[in-house]
Amino acid sequence: MPRYRITVEYDGTPFVGWQRQADGMSVQGALENAIHAFCGEQPGVRGAGRTDAGVHARGQVAHFDLEKAWEAGRVRDAVNFHLKPRPVGVIDCAQVPTDFDARFSATKRHYEYRILTRRTPPVLERDRVWWVVHDLDADAMAAAAQEFVGNHDFSTFRAAQCQARSPVKTLDIFSVARFGSLIVCRVTARSFLHNQVRSMVGSLKLVGDGKWIAADIGAALRARDRAACGPVAPASGLYLDRVDYGSATETIVV
Amino acid sequence: MPRYRITVEYDGTPFVGWQRQADGMSVQGALENAIHAFCGEQPGVRGAGRTDAGVHARGQVAHFDLEKAWEAGRVRDAVNFHLKPRPVGVIDCAQVPTDFDARFSATKRHYEYRILTRRTPPVLERDRVWWVVHDLDADAMAAAAQEFVGNHDFSTFRAAQCQARSPVKTLDIFSVARFGSLIVCRVTARSFLHNQVRSMVGSLKLVGDGKWIAADIGAALRARDRAACGPVAPASGLYLDRVDYGSATETIVV
Repeated sequence: MPRYRITVEYDGTPFVGWQRQADGMSVQGALENAIHAFCGEQPGVRGAGRTDAGVHARGQVAHFDLEKAWEAGRVRDAVNFHLKPRPVGVIDCAQVPTDFDARFSATKRHYEYRILTRRTPPVLERDRVWWVVHDLDADAMAAAAQEFVGNHDFSTFRAAQCQARSPVKTLDIFSVARFGSLIVCRVTARSFLHNQVRSMVGSLKLVGDGKWIAADIGAALRARDRAACGPVAPASGLYLDRVDYGSATETIVV
Repeated sequence: MPRYRITVEYDGTPFVGWQRQADGMSVQGALENAIHAFCGEQPGVRGAGRTDAGVHARGQVAHFDLEKAWEAGRVRDAVNFHLKPRPVGVIDCAQVPTDFDARFSATKRHYEYRILTRRTPPVLERDRVWWVVHDLDADAMAAAAQEFVGNHDFSTFRAAQCQARSPVKTLDIFSVARFGSLIVCRVTARSFLHNQVRSMVGSLKLVGDGKWIAADIGAALRARDRAACGPVAPASGLYLDRVDYGSATETIVV
């Protein structure tokens, strides 16, 4: 059976999350329904990252198998037609070898987290940022974020319901940059624990507030205890930006 | 009477435009209603640019007078409270001399126009870009845009209903840059004619398509005839980004 890889953009606001659930519309369910409407088949769609309710994606990657070999551009256009008016779009589709797995073949996942620091509620960025009404010390956050980089036991920064076998992960990059009133965090790793990015950003915000210093981030990590984590940052600021596969030259660039 | 200057962000999608009209909600009307709800006064709010229906703003500037001298931060917060849930926000408020006029004191207006060039409909940028399903030659557009720079009679690029006394304007900057599938145009001038930016971008898109060359832009300008203009670009891609007042050191930066 031909296997298709799709790259997907979505606004997570109206969805219960990536994963199909008993109640409510998921991104996975919206894609599966659109594929069924297009060709009558009902494949399972497996994604690289199971984003939570309200989390967005610019480049989620997923795969599915169909009985029939369609031209990839035809699949993209037909699925997009049937996705309307939901805020999900397939921005790339390709037929791939059947050993490609969107989740297990991924070599890097890139997330972005956006914080809007100003007195006025977000307007053009409504539902797309974490709104913090006061300023944050982005330089202090950028320095403290380096505590997360490297191979660590991230038990402190892991949701209670996380199903990963090991809490040990290797974080490659954690940058924090300011653009006017917007603070943008970029995080890269092969894989993440459930709620890891939002947990790390929530604790970094305490550094931005001046309530924590960088050493407190290090101490929280070493505690390996969920209770040592700061408040988890809201879903609305998080974007699954890109997923890489194989070597750098095989990176999917859309 | 104390005069207040406000800097305003809005999503133009649900509005009939900046200007109050007999039917439908305008941005100006939303602000006037919110000011009335806050303090009981009914001042006219005058903006720097009368944006059309669907046009957005990151930094529209307006002024109004109140009988009472309020602390400026109080005005900002109270107006924002009463603007909810409409997608308008006051991002800055200051008391200014009574000879300040948001429209006539402006020395530079900066607009941005965003074009998304891809097969897939916009998702995160829905209602915020001009969606063009094929690629455009951004380099050719950038070169041709320079035909607009300088002092010209812009009659060709002016809406029939434009009320400006003279069609002669001086364009300072017209840059076109590509960021992946997004093409961003930035245009600066002291003032613009009605629909001027959208008319210029619409004609530049013909250059991006390969249907026009740069010399056709120059010829259209010299024609001084609305009929020589390409199709007007849609409102959804246009943002009033910033308005400057006085000398460079007095520029309002938010």
